[in-house]
Amino acid sequence: MEKIVLIFSGGMDSTVLLYDLILQNKEVIAVSFDYGQKHKKELLAAKKIAEDNKIEHQVLDISSLTQHLSNSSLTNADIEVPDGHYASSNMSVTVVPNRNMIFLSIAAGFAINRGIRQLAYGAHRGDHFIYADCREEFVSSISQTFKLCDNTPVILQAPYLNYTKADICKLGSKLDAPFINTWSCYKGQDLHCGQCGTCFERREAFVDAGISDPTIYEK
Amino acid sequence: MEKIVLIFSGGMDSTVLLYDLILQNKEVIAVSFDYGQKHKKELLAAKKIAEDNKIEHQVLDISSLTQHLSNSSLTNADIEVPDGHYASSNMSVTVVPNRNMIFLSIAAGFAINRGIRQLAYGAHRGDHFIYADCREEFVSSISQTFKLCDNTPVILQAPYLNYTKADICKLGSKLDAPFINTWSCYKGQDLHCGQCGTCFERREAFVDAGISDPTIYEK
Repeated sequence: MEKIVLIFSGGMDSTVLLYDLILQNKEVIAVSFDYGQKHKKELLAAKKIAEDNKIEHQVLDISSLTQHLSNSSLTNADIEVPDGHYASSNMSVTVVPNRNMIFLSIAAGFAINRGIRQLAYGAHRGDHFIYADCREEFVSSISQTFKLCDNTPVILQAPYLNYTKADICKLGSKLDAPFINTWSCYKGQDLHCGQCGTCFERREAFVDAGISDPTIYEK
Repeated sequence: MEKIVLIFSGGMDSTVLLYDLILQNKEVIAVSFDYGQKHKKELLAAKKIAEDNKIEHQVLDISSLTQHLSNSSLTNADIEVPDGHYASSNMSVTVVPNRNMIFLSIAAGFAINRGIRQLAYGAHRGDHFIYADCREEFVSSISQTFKLCDNTPVILQAPYLNYTKADICKLGSKLDAPFINTWSCYKGQDLHCGQCGTCFERREAFVDAGISDPTIYEK
């Protein structure tokens, strides 16, 4: 069974990718990052989903970097997470600079250290509006860099780059991915708030996919 | 004065690069990484050199990752640092997987967060034997990735890529870089051991450059 390291947030996209990879008969090692998020709901969601699938799950702690990467509302307690759609101008405060490149680089080191050469992450088209490091040209470039970062190439898979979130939702539904156990909301209250950028996107995805949304939203 | 973030280990190469950048009238922000090195001598060296030059110096702590990247003799207490030349087969235990890519990615996030778009590091030709992430094709590829990782490109400088360490030594001598305050040795005793890969390389560089070596070696 081929091993693959998956960057696993506990959200919808990486959870569908987890189920996708398991179906492809891969042995998935899931890595999540504690980067000083204001809440740990997504890490708990990741833990539960990994346990349910009896796969190894590692939380890599880079929260000590937060103070140096702290202009984002996702990590800085002084900045409020804005309500509204990703496409809105106010969403730029949810950008953690170079987050995906940092995650990918560390995950690659983690993989190399174990002799694993496969790496996967669930970037998708909907993210591209504001997150440069989810765009196809970025992924294509960093894939090339990963082929050169060690004596044996690391192969990066980002199979949903041209999927909408609704496409991922449809695929997840086919794969019986447990959407109810995934966490999206940036605010991390008891329930999904239903108002922040990622809640908007989550709701829309289910509607666009024509799939019943099991999520209970605050509003 | 243009700002630039320099990856600064406190060793010879990044110290010469610091002096080089200062001479180019750049405002340097030096970042060092605590990645769970067995010793802190190089971080102390970096601190002193930064203080002497009155430049900002930040130590970014990623030591919690060590357990996940721990097959290297530089971080793993159970593995001894080997004596001998870099070109020797036993030197592979000094490789921390994907270290430079991790450092560069985090330093880029740090720079972007401050609105700085210039990044520098002191990789040089001598490292290429065993460290894939010091090779020209790697640096060329990651430079391209940095142009795409955010909406505004980050520009990576690695001006010593085709320098030998002796070349850097000669340049440093011209620039009055304080070699006596730099630290190379992997072992981190009171004095440079004179026997490990990086001590070998340091000694050779001074000899090849025809410059008097101010370092006091244990052996």
